[in-house]
Amino acid sequence: MSATAASIDIESAVLEACRRAKVASRALATATRSTKDAALHAMADALVEHSARIVSANAEDVERGRENDMTPGLLDRLALTDERICGIAEALRFLAALPDPVGEVKRGSTLPNGMRLIQKATPMGVVGMIYEARPNVTVDAAGLALKSGNAAVLRGGSAAARSNEVIVDVLQGALQQVGLPRDAVQSIDAYGREGARVLMNARGLVDVLVPRGGRSLIQAVVRDSTVPAIETGEGNCHVYLDSSAPVARSVEIVVNSKTHRVGVCNAAETLLVHRDAAERVLPSVLAALHEEGVTLHADAAASALAPQGVPTVPATDEDWATEYLSLDIAVRVVDDLDEAIAHVQRYSTGHTEAIVTEDIGAAERFVSQLDTAAIMVNASTRFTDGAQFGLGAEIGISTQKLHARGPMGLAELTTTTWIAYGDGHIRA
Amino acid sequence: MSATAASIDIESAVLEACRRAKVASRALATATRSTKDAALHAMADALVEHSARIVSANAEDVERGRENDMTPGLLDRLALTDERICGIAEALRFLAALPDPVGEVKRGSTLPNGMRLIQKATPMGVVGMIYEARPNVTVDAAGLALKSGNAAVLRGGSAAARSNEVIVDVLQGALQQVGLPRDAVQSIDAYGREGARVLMNARGLVDVLVPRGGRSLIQAVVRDSTVPAIETGEGNCHVYLDSSAPVARSVEIVVNSKTHRVGVCNAAETLLVHRDAAERVLPSVLAALHEEGVTLHADAAASALAPQGVPTVPATDEDWATEYLSLDIAVRVVDDLDEAIAHVQRYSTGHTEAIVTEDIGAAERFVSQLDTAAIMVNASTRFTDGAQFGLGAEIGISTQKLHARGPMGLAELTTTTWIAYGDGHIRA
Repeated sequence: MSATAASIDIESAVLEACRRAKVASRALATATRSTKDAALHAMADALVEHSARIVSANAEDVERGRENDMTPGLLDRLALTDERICGIAEALRFLAALPDPVGEVKRGSTLPNGMRLIQKATPMGVVGMIYEARPNVTVDAAGLALKSGNAAVLRGGSAAARSNEVIVDVLQGALQQVGLPRDAVQSIDAYGREGARVLMNARGLVDVLVPRGGRSLIQAVVRDSTVPAIETGEGNCHVYLDSSAPVARSVEIVVNSKTHRVGVCNAAETLLVHRDAAERVLPSVLAALHEEGVTLHADAAASALAPQGVPTVPATDEDWATEYLSLDIAVRVVDDLDEAIAHVQRYSTGHTEAIVTEDIGAAERFVSQLDTAAIMVNASTRFTDGAQFGLGAEIGISTQKLHARGPMGLAELTTTTWIAYGDGHIRA
Repeated sequence: MSATAASIDIESAVLEACRRAKVASRALATATRSTKDAALHAMADALVEHSARIVSANAEDVERGRENDMTPGLLDRLALTDERICGIAEALRFLAALPDPVGEVKRGSTLPNGMRLIQKATPMGVVGMIYEARPNVTVDAAGLALKSGNAAVLRGGSAAARSNEVIVDVLQGALQQVGLPRDAVQSIDAYGREGARVLMNARGLVDVLVPRGGRSLIQAVVRDSTVPAIETGEGNCHVYLDSSAPVARSVEIVVNSKTHRVGVCNAAETLLVHRDAAERVLPSVLAALHEEGVTLHADAAASALAPQGVPTVPATDEDWATEYLSLDIAVRVVDDLDEAIAHVQRYSTGHTEAIVTEDIGAAERFVSQLDTAAIMVNASTRFTDGAQFGLGAEIGISTQKLHARGPMGLAELTTTTWIAYGDGHIRA
C-alpha cells in the first residue's frame, strides 16, 4: 500500500471514529446525572476488576520504552501498578460525587415583552484530547468528558498505546453496562501522528480540542488545528517581595512556590525583590533556597546579598524568560513596585504571579496591573490548581484568554444554549 | 521596491500598530467606568462635530464604489449621511449607559484553608476586528472594545478605507481629549489584505480576533489565524410546527421569522410541519408566505397542500442546506417530532431553531435534543439578538461553542482573572 493510500485510510478511520463519537454524544447530552454517575462507578469497578490485564498491557509499553531509552521520569509516568489503578479508579468515584455541570442556569431574565429567557450550560459535544504517554490521563479525560455530557476522542502518546487500548476497551465495556454507547470514549492511538493531525482538523465533528503537553505539542495545535483549541500553557511564574514583605513569610512563600514541586507549571521561576526590602529579606530567602538545593541565578545586587557559603551564578536575560521546571530560580532586585510590574509584564506567560506585602495599596496595584490567569496575594504560586480552587477536578490550566483561563474543571467543558419561551411572540 | 520588501514593510507596520495597541490596552484595563464613559461621550460629540469631514471622505469611497460597480445594497451600507452619523453617535451614548463588564465577580468562595478566592472579569487586552465595508461597524467596534477595557485594531473593508481613516482619526482625538491613549483605537485598512493576514497572526499581541462577514472571510480566519478567533457564523434557521400548533400563531411566527428581515442570520430558512398538523395549518401558512412574496420550495406533501393560486417549486436536498437570505423558504412535511429533530440535527448551522407547539413534552424534547446557540419556544427566530436578549449591545452572533455562543455583548469581550488572598498560605 502506498503512503498516500495509508494516509487516506487513516483519515477515513479517524473521521469515522469522530462521526461515531458525534452520534454517541447525543445520548450523553441527554443522559441524567444518575446515569452518568453510574457509568463513572462502573468504569471505576471495571478498571479494578481488569487491573491484571491493564498492568500486563502496560508492561509491554514500559518494556518498549526501556528499549527506546525513555528517561526514568517518563518511564515512571508511564508505569501502572494495581495500586495506581486503584487511585485512578478513585478519581472517577470522586468525579461522580461532584455536581453535574450540565443544566446549570448561567443567566436568565424575563424580557420586557414577557418572554422568559435562560442561558443554560450544555455539553460541548465531542471533546478531542491530545496528550503524552500517561495512561492515567486517558481515564481522567474520559471521566471528565463523560461527567460533562461529552463524548471523548483520545490520542495519547504512542508510547502508551497498548495500555490505552486495553483501558479504553475496559471503559467502553462499563459504558455499555449502564446502557450508554461504547463510542462515547474512543482512542485513536493506533493512527499515530497522522491520526492526531486528522483529529485537529475534524472541524464540525470535534467541538473542542484540549492539548496537554509540552511546547511543541501546543505550538503544533495552534499552527495546524482548525478545531477550536484551549491551550494549556507554560508557567514562568514570579514571586515579588514588596518593601514591606516580612522575612519569615517571604522565606516560606518563596521556598514553597519554588520547591514544593519543581516540574509543574505553577512553580515559581523568578524572584523579584524591592530594593528597600532586599537587605532585610534576601539573605534569609537565598539561604533557605540554597538549603533546599536551589541554584540561584542572581543579578549583581541580589548576588551581593547572598550570605557566605551561598553561591550564586550570574543571571542573564535568558534566565528571566526561562521556565526552569527544575531546582533553579532567577533573582532580581528591582527599584520599586513599578519596576517589578514592568518586569512581570515583559516576561510573564500569564499563568500565576504572587506578591508578598503588608501594603494594601501595593497589593491592589499588583492585582490590577497584571494580565494573568491567577494572582496570589500573600500565598504560594502553587495554589493555582483545580482541586485547590475547589473546582473538584481539573483537565488542565489554561494560559489563554478565550473560554477558560486558569484551572479548567467540568464547567469549562460545557458551552451554553439560550432558550426563550414565548407565547406567540413575534418581532414588531 | 520588491514585493517581498513591501510585504516586510506591511508586516512591521501592522505589528508595530499591534504593539502600540498592547501598550495602550494597559491604560484602558485600569481606566474607571467614568473615564471610559466620558470617552464614549467625547467620541459621540466628535463624530457629530466632524460630520461634514466624515461625509466628504465617505463620498470618495462611495464614488469609488460606484466606479467599481458595487451593488446598490453594498453602496447603501457604505454610505454615510449627517443623520446616519447622528445615529452612530447615539449608539455610543447608549453604550456609555450600560454597566461596566470589567470587575464583575463571576465566582468566589472562601477555601477550606481560609484563603479568599474570586474570579473577576478582566479585559481581553487587544481585540482585532476584521469586517466589511460598513463604516458604522468601525465606530461600534471601537466603542464596544473601549467599554470593555480593550484596545481595538480594526481592519474594515478597503472599500470604506477613506471613511474609516477619518472616523478613526476623529475617535482618536476624542480619546486624547479625556486623557486616554490615541493608540487604543487604530485602523490598519491602509495595509490591505496582507495587513489582515499579519493581524490574524499577531499572536501574543492581539488577544482575540472577531471576524464579521461572509463565509469566505470566516473560513480564511479559521484556516489562517493563529490568534484565537470567535466565529460569527451562518444561520440556517428552522421553524417546526408541531402536531398541536395553532393556525394563527403558526402563521404569525413563520411569517415573522421569514420576512421580518430577510438578509439576516436569524431569519428562518426552512419550515418543517408535523404530518398531523399539515392539512390544518399548512394552507394558511403557505398562503400567508406567498402573500409576502416568498417563493416556496416545497416537498411533495407540502406542495399538495398549497391552496389554489399559491405556486410552489420542488425542494431539492440543496434547499435544506441553503441559507437563502432572501424571500425563499424550504418546506417539508415530517412524520413526527423525531423526524423534525433528525432533520434539524442534520442541516442546522447551530444558530436558532424554533418550535410552535402546545405540548410541553414536545417543547422539552425539542429543547433538550438540539445542539444550537438558541432555541425559541413559541416565538420568532428573529429574537436571537443582543438587544432583544437585553445584552445592550452586540458585537456579533457566535455559532461556535468556545467562549461565546449566541449574541455576544460586552461580557463576551472580557476574560477572567482568579485572585487569591492569603495570609502567608503555603501548600502542605
